Amino acid sequence: MGKGRLEAFSDGVLAILITIMVLELKVPRGGEFSSLRPLVPVFLSYVLSFIYLGIYWNNHHHMLHTVTRVSAAILWANLHLLFWLSLIPFVTGWMGENHFAAPPTALYGAILLMAAIAYWVLQRTILSSLGPHSRLAAAVGKDLKGKISPVLYALAIPSAFFSRWIAGGLYVLVAMMWLVPDRRIEAAYSDKA
Amino acid sequence: MGKGRLEAFSDGVLAILITIMVLELKVPRGGEFSSLRPLVPVFLSYVLSFIYLGIYWNNHHHMLHTVTRVSAAILWANLHLLFWLSLIPFVTGWMGENHFAAPPTALYGAILLMAAIAYWVLQRTILSSLGPHSRLAAAVGKDLKGKISPVLYALAIPSAFFSRWIAGGLYVLVAMMWLVPDRRIEAAYSDKA
Amino acid sequence: MGKGRLEAFSDGVLAILITIMVLELKVPRGGEFSSLRPLVPVFLSYVLSFIYLGIYWNNHHHMLHTVTRVSAAILWANLHLLFWLSLIPFVTGWMGENHFAAPPTALYGAILLMAAIAYWVLQRTILSSLGPHSRLAAAVGKDLKGKISPVLYALAIPSAFFSRWIAGGLYVLVAMMWLVPDRRIEAAYSDKA
Amino acid sequence: MGKGRLEAFSDGVLAILITIMVLELKVPRGGEFSSLRPLVPVFLSYVLSFIYLGIYWNNHHHMLHTVTRVSAAILWANLHLLFWLSLIPFVTGWMGENHFAAPPTALYGAILLMAAIAYWVLQRTILSSLGPHSRLAAAVGKDLKGKISPVLYALAIPSAFFSRWIAGGLYVLVAMMWLVPDRRIEAAYSDKA
Repeated sequence: MGKGRLEAFSDGVLAILITIMVLELKVPRGGEFSSLRPLVPVFLSYVLSFIYLGIYWNNHHHMLHTVTRVSAAILWANLHLLFWLSLIPFVTGWMGENHFAAPPTALYGAILLMAAIAYWVLQRTILSSLGPHSRLAAAVGKDLKGKISPVLYALAIPSAFFSRWIAGGLYVLVAMMWLVPDRRIEAAYSDKA
Repeated sequence: MGKGRLEAFSDGVLAILITIMVLELKVPRGGEFSSLRPLVPVFLSYVLSFIYLGIYWNNHHHMLHTVTRVSAAILWANLHLLFWLSLIPFVTGWMGENHFAAPPTALYGAILLMAAIAYWVLQRTILSSLGPHSRLAAAVGKDLKGKISPVLYALAIPSAFFSRWIAGGLYVLVAMMWLVPDRRIEAAYSDKA
Repeated sequence: MGKGRLEAFSDGVLAILITIMVLELKVPRGGEFSSLRPLVPVFLSYVLSFIYLGIYWNNHHHMLHTVTRVSAAILWANLHLLFWLSLIPFVTGWMGENHFAAPPTALYGAILLMAAIAYWVLQRTILSSLGPHSRLAAAVGKDLKGKISPVLYALAIPSAFFSRWIAGGLYVLVAMMWLVPDRRIEAAYSDKA
Repeated sequence: MGKGRLEAFSDGVLAILITIMVLELKVPRGGEFSSLRPLVPVFLSYVLSFIYLGIYWNNHHHMLHTVTRVSAAILWANLHLLFWLSLIPFVTGWMGENHFAAPPTALYGAILLMAAIAYWVLQRTILSSLGPHSRLAAAVGKDLKGKISPVLYALAIPSAFFSRWIAGGLYVLVAMMWLVPDRRIEAAYSDKA
């Protein structure tokens, strides 16, 4: 089976998720700039999640690029990933509307962690279908970011109960890590390792 | 006429349906974990419907794979299927917000039953356009799951008025039946038959 | 310029329109069947508009099938059509929630009339880009339905103020006219003409 | 990497944005024409933003037409553009519901300005990937509209605090400038210059 519809369906779901998040930015009653003030944390959480969903779309794009045939296992691993990503608008809204209170901020990390695990499962499923000498296997072999991200999410979850700044900072850090162009950051990591 | 736009349109509708269901998970006012408790049944019904729509997308994908030309009858049979599927977010929300009360739980089964019938009609329409010796006809000939599912939905509808657990259990059972890889379950059925 | 993105964008907008209409079917508070009763007119108007949008998607599909190159004029004529179609969910909800009262029922016809005019403009734009001997020109030459529909909408608008049954009946009649397979209805019309 | 998924994802997001704006047109309680009166400014702002998103889709379509390979920088410049466009439904609703009061009308211009800058960044990123002799470079070299638009947005932002008519008129002017076919307007500009 071809991968065309898998990509189209995933693109559709990701495009909808990234867009319906903006519906949490509810149009305020008043027409003064001050009526926007309560929306600031909602807006900040929107920006963060927009970047995360953009990163997932970007990585998903790259990962599927070398795939030619799609098995039932890949289809379901992909739906599993989309399921966790589909909860991002909910938890983004909850976190933003409660000004980054500890429980929503911890749950945000938990959803990101589950999405990262689902992404890893999808990657393993694809890799095992491609065999050990695929181009994707070569690319993933160096994938330090994919291993560090879940560790940072797992750290952020308990830290949300101590300080929203630490948890939020960790989420921003992971997002930055993926946004910065690949080669430089990988060089940096291999220096540290 | 080619099938490209039929697939694209169906993918679009299914991607939107699977995603707008999450809008029923309304962001709660409070920022405590306890504010999530009323959402638990809504979340469970979301998971169930996410799996059902995933199964429909998956099966739709497979069914159209061997089709090359699309007639007006296929276009309308496909829209008829999408119509019943489009009611799933509504009935999912109604069932979840009323904690699996009997009427919404029965209606959920009725919508699943209508969708299963619409799927069967679409399959017949495609099969009659392909002729009796198509690859799809061979695959469908063994399709026990397609015959058992509507029977189980029809059983679940009245049983919802006796026990929400029986009805809910039947919905989970049908979903599981489709999720488990094909060959094993078909072997199991042919043993029983 | 190719037509691929025009089709993809139109499919996307139509898929979203046909799906967000279902959001007007607001999940009722109570879990009894009687809580669904106020939704009956909303549901009926949803069914009608689902069929109309399905017809537009279907016809759009056929019209673009023979097109190979897309001009700026076609792009904008297409967006103009999508604009009027985008108002269908609004007017569907207004009509349904007010139990087919005269003003919303008349506005429903006015939006359908504008969409029909926009469709005609798009058709003319495409035809003039294809030249007088195109396959589409041959097909449209016989297009009685496209000429009768706006007349019936124009009749339905004032009649809504006398009887919602006449207006509603005309909307159903036009929808039926498009749903019934082409050749038979055209034979019927040529007999009457 | 191919551009197929970039186009598909952008089309998806733009199709959703152009469609969810209509959700701000909230179905009014009453069934009289007078119940539509409070919606008139919301409707006008919807029409304006529909045209703007249509222009962006149209231009995006043209710009990507000559692109063959997509780099990570292009992917992220594209997401950056989609981010600013994703705020258009919010600011459209805020402007419409507050009858074009100064702060929302100024913010509307600010979002348009940011989107124009993001479009310019995307264009530069694509141009630098194509080299100095590309077809796109030739087309953009004459692009007076792309230079005038941000200037007019920047003028509209402060003018909103003096008169909503000036700001609104500038937004309409820019939209008109893009809608009118290219050659005539460019001839007009070169006469004036």
